[in-house]
Formats: sequence, structure tokens, C-alpha cells
Amino acid sequence: MTMENTWWLAPCAPLQTGIAEQAAQRQAELTKPLGALGRLEQVAIQCAAWQGQVQPSITQPHAVLFAADHGVVAQGVSAFPQAVTVEMLKNFVHGGAAMSVLTQHHGMPLTLVNCGTAIPCEQVTGVLHRPIALGTADFSQQPAMTTEQAQQALALGAEQAEHAHQQGCDLLLVGEMGIGNTSCATVLAAALLQQPVAELVGAGTGLAGAALAHKCEVLTRSVERADIGPEHDALNIAEQLGGFEVLAMTGAYLRAAQLGLPSLVDGFIASAALLLAQRFQPRVTDWVLYGHQSAEPGHQAVLAALNAQPLVSLGMRLGEGSGAAIAYPLVQQALLLHRAMATFAEAAVSSSASEG
Amino acid sequence: MTMENTWWLAPCAPLQTGIAEQAAQRQAELTKPLGALGRLEQVAIQCAAWQGQVQPSITQPHAVLFAADHGVVAQGVSAFPQAVTVEMLKNFVHGGAAMSVLTQHHGMPLTLVNCGTAIPCEQVTGVLHRPIALGTADFSQQPAMTTEQAQQALALGAEQAEHAHQQGCDLLLVGEMGIGNTSCATVLAAALLQQPVAELVGAGTGLAGAALAHKCEVLTRSVERADIGPEHDALNIAEQLGGFEVLAMTGAYLRAAQLGLPSLVDGFIASAALLLAQRFQPRVTDWVLYGHQSAEPGHQAVLAALNAQPLVSLGMRLGEGSGAAIAYPLVQQALLLHRAMATFAEAAVSSSASEG
Repeated sequence: MTMENTWWLAPCAPLQTGIAEQAAQRQAELTKPLGALGRLEQVAIQCAAWQGQVQPSITQPHAVLFAADHGVVAQGVSAFPQAVTVEMLKNFVHGGAAMSVLTQHHGMPLTLVNCGTAIPCEQVTGVLHRPIALGTADFSQQPAMTTEQAQQALALGAEQAEHAHQQGCDLLLVGEMGIGNTSCATVLAAALLQQPVAELVGAGTGLAGAALAHKCEVLTRSVERADIGPEHDALNIAEQLGGFEVLAMTGAYLRAAQLGLPSLVDGFIASAALLLAQRFQPRVTDWVLYGHQSAEPGHQAVLAALNAQPLVSLGMRLGEGSGAAIAYPLVQQALLLHRAMATFAEAAVSSSASEG
Repeated sequence: MTMENTWWLAPCAPLQTGIAEQAAQRQAELTKPLGALGRLEQVAIQCAAWQGQVQPSITQPHAVLFAADHGVVAQGVSAFPQAVTVEMLKNFVHGGAAMSVLTQHHGMPLTLVNCGTAIPCEQVTGVLHRPIALGTADFSQQPAMTTEQAQQALALGAEQAEHAHQQGCDLLLVGEMGIGNTSCATVLAAALLQQPVAELVGAGTGLAGAALAHKCEVLTRSVERADIGPEHDALNIAEQLGGFEVLAMTGAYLRAAQLGLPSLVDGFIASAALLLAQRFQPRVTDWVLYGHQSAEPGHQAVLAALNAQPLVSLGMRLGEGSGAAIAYPLVQQALLLHRAMATFAEAAVSSSASEG
């Protein structure tokens, strides 16, 4: 795929607000008190705005999982060794990882993309191998990658969104795997929100005590080194502090929104990638729903900046897209209720107005 | 069914805590950071304790919906006319109500029980007609029912739990329909928690402003009239302020717990019924999971008293069991992940301990 170097500047698809109003009217006519389905009503109305259908349905969800490694793990910021990224890719292929189990349960294809693992793994079948490099550079010492690599990573995600869209996908779930990528999400969030790392950093896969303090110190130093200011654009931030899989997610959200393909957003790392996407293209968030509130402390700050309300809050902190997959049945149930419930007129039920 | 007048004093089934410990051990071995599935891990462990299976599964959920009317609506405490209870029963039969749509989607049988609608409706087929009376008496003026009627309502719920259990049900969802039953739940909660009605009362199906203030005044007066003190037992409270469908729910939770049949609890009315069940039998809450946090303000207080954390909080306030049904796929996903994910050993993935 050839893409312009600035493909992300193309506008997002418009929302069909007139159809959304009709969907809201339908919600008012269904046999329930007005508003009694709470946020499920908003989900249905949002999907109507996306699809231009008063009674929308989602029948072809597709999950894409981007995997890559991070140079910063050399500083000892993760509880797991870097070998785990490739080991987990194999686990995804064999169906043993959480996201494999959930996507299979939902009848949802799961595309696995190697964006650049530290240990070469081209021999692993069932994975789309598109490595940009053997992991990023250590962003505590230098930019995580070159401008060209950042563009490659963004384009890789965009390409996957396009591919899913071409196959008829009507809801995209983007996930990630990469030892050290909560660190990457934390520094991205710190730079984008101009908030101290100390307010955003968390346990990741399981750090505590001195190890967590050390992570905080390394990441604070990384953000200082990158020295991001208002004069830096999204691409600068991406190359300074990004990860290949994180930028692929950013590219996927951007391209999906341009194509009118909605995304169901996962947790902290996904939301940081989306926050970066918003810096490229502010309307990208018109095309997302938020799956879950992660236990990672930085997620709350990123969600607040995105004005986002996730569907569930279950203390999960796994990544992979698993929080989005867990929330997916709530979206399905919202749409089903919207389509299948009877109206007051159809069911001959008295509405509250009839009493006064 | 003949039941002793004090059948509710029989103990609840014991939890299999040894099996729960084995299930917790399995969670620690699955290919994810420890605790990364958050509350889904606790759901799986809780089900293991219920079923005595390290890898539990739920295959026969069953929903029972109790419908009845409330004398207190004569005081103008609901936005909907009383005719709606029977109209909605027909809507349930025809599949147009939210709970009909959700249970059909989940392949879950839905038993409809008429516990005492104000308008006789024996002609409606597809409903189990077991009316105790044509609605309760107006509890703002007098006890809602006789002691015998309260016992009948409790036994009716118990009978349905037994019936579901006999058919192999492994998860019970109990719902309700009854114009005025948020009022009933509110006064029950006020009496049981010894909290002012004003802190618990809410919009129900859609009251606001002066109508809501009037509801608050009527319900405050009702609780004062009943004059419940520490010397009153659960059955006293039930007959003073209960509703037939609410007490049927109480009876269902109690009998289900005795039989070792777990329940997935719906919103405010269901939780008030459970709070009353806890007054009969403190261990009843060992046998429940909480589906959702309702938008009704009293629910927060009742949940706090039950030390309960619902699975979702979506601003729903519909009743019918719909919040439990919405949360049901989260329980299923929790169990699926617990059973189907690979362990670190099976997947040859390095655990964090391997790094140190």
C-alpha cells in the first residue's frame, strides 16, 4: 500500500446526526420508561449515527492485535522478560491467551501483526510479520525511532484498518502485546497531557515498591529528555516516545475513522494511542466507544482528557484488546434491545403520558 | 407444595472453599499477569466455590419474573397507570419487553408469574397465574398484606426457585414487574437500613419535581405508619411494607441459597428483596453475584449494606431482571477465560518470577 506521508490529515467520516435523532425517537417509543436503559440507549444511538441506520446492527467485528518490543525495558521497567512478547504471540496463535479465547467465543477474527519484536520470530506461523525493527530504541536515552519508522508504524495500523474495512468489518477492536508498553503509554500520556509521570504511572504487569519507584524515575527522565512542548506536533511525539505497536494502533484508529469504521477501544495503552490519534485528527473520537476502565492509574487521566466513559470497570489490566472484547456483548445487547423491543403502540402498553 | 411456616430458617448450602482456593491457584497459573483479569477472576473463583468445580461452567441459566400490583399507587407515586402491569405481562409473553429480548438472546427460559395484579388477568396465556390478591393494600394507610399473604408470597418465590433447580438450572435470575414497586423497595430499604426515605427515594419510572417530592412524602409517612423497630422481625417488615412480587423474590433468593443454586441479582428492587432475605437468613448473600448498579439512588445504599459490587454500572433503571441479564455475558466470559486460557506451563510462556 502506498500512502501519502500525511494521509492522517484527511477528514474523518461524518456522523449521520439526522439518523441518530430518529434512533433517539425510537428509544423514546420502546416499552420502557424514557431513559431506563441508561447508557445502552446512547450506544444504540451512536451506532445509528455511524451506520446511517435507525436500527443498526453489528455483524462483523474484527480484532487486530499489534505486537512489538520496547528499548526502554533495558532500564528494568517491566516485571516480565522481553522474550514474553514472542512467547505470547505463539500463545495467541494457539488460542491460549485471553484475547484468543474471547475472540473465538464471539466469532470474531483475530489478526496478529508483528510490528517489531526484539527477538526475530518470522518462523511463527499465523502471524502477519511486518517488523519495523527489532524493537524500538530506548526512549530514556534517545528518540524511540526515526520519523520514517513512526510513519511506517502508523501506516501499518492504517493498512490493517483498511483491510478489515474491505472485508466488511463493522466494528474494529485493536489490541496490543509488548513487554514495556505500559511504560510507553505512560510517557505518551505524560507528554500529551503535560502531566507528571508520577500521577500516571502504575504497576503495569505487576511492579510494586522500589521497582515501581524506579519505573517512575526512568519514565520521568524519558519525558524530560524528549522535552515535548506545544511546538511539537503529533509525529514528533510519536517518534520520541512511541512504540511500534502503539503507533500502529494510532494509525488504525485514524484510518478507521476516515473510512467510517467505528472502533471499540481497549484500556490504558489503547487510550493513549487514541489520545495521540486525536492530536493528529481531533474528530477521530467521533468514531469510538470505550470498552473498559483499566486498573492502571494513567487510564483515568487519559479517559478524562478524551471525555470518555467506558462501558465497564472491572479492575482489568491485561491489554491485548481484552477489555474491549469483554465489553463487546454489552454493545450487542444495546443494539438488540434497540431493534427487537416492542414500541408502546405495537404492544398496546399505556405510556406514562396517558396518565399525566 | 407444602412448606413449613418457617422454611426460611433452614441453613444455606455451604460454599466449597477448598475448591475456591484451587480455582484461585489456577488463576495464578494462567498466561496473564497475576490479577490482570480483575473482578472476572473473583467471579470464576466464586462460581468454583458454588459448584465445587475448579473449572466451573454455567449452562442452564433460568429467569423468573414476578409481577404484582401495589395499593400505594392510589397515592399517586408512579408515572405509569396500574393497567401497565398486565399490559407489560402480555408484552413479556409476546417477546417485546427488554427482559424477553435479552433472555431469548441468551437462550434462557423466562418464567412469568402473576403474584397478584390489580386487574385480574387469568386469561393471559403464557403466564403462571398464582395471584395472592388483587394487589397489596395501600401501605401508607395500613399493612400491605396479612401475615399469611406474606408467607404465601415468600413460598411462591421459593417454589419457583425449587422448580428451576429441579430442572437443572445453575444460575437464577429473578426479575419483577409492578407499577409502584420502586416505592415498595424504597420503604423496605428505609425500614431495613433505618435510613430516611429522603436519602433513598428516586424517580422510579420517571417522576420529577413536585411529583417526586409527593412520592417522598407518601413513603416517609408509610414508614412512620409501619413504625418498624429492632423488635420487628423480617416477616413483620414483609407484611407491613412488602409487595407480593418483591416478597416472591425474597423467597426465591432464600430457597435458591438453601438449594445451592446461585442467583445473579438485578437492580434496586431485587437488592431490596435480597436485603430482606438477608434479615431472614444472613448467609443468603453467599449465593449471589450482583449484576448492575441502578440509577435509582436507594440502590447505592442497599448495595453498601450488602457489601456488594455490581458487575456493571450503566445508568439502567428498568427492572424486570434486565440489569442481571445484561451482566450475564460478563459472568460467562469470566468462566470461559478461567477454563480455556492456557497456563504458563502449557503455553511455554515465561512467568514474571523467571526474571526476578
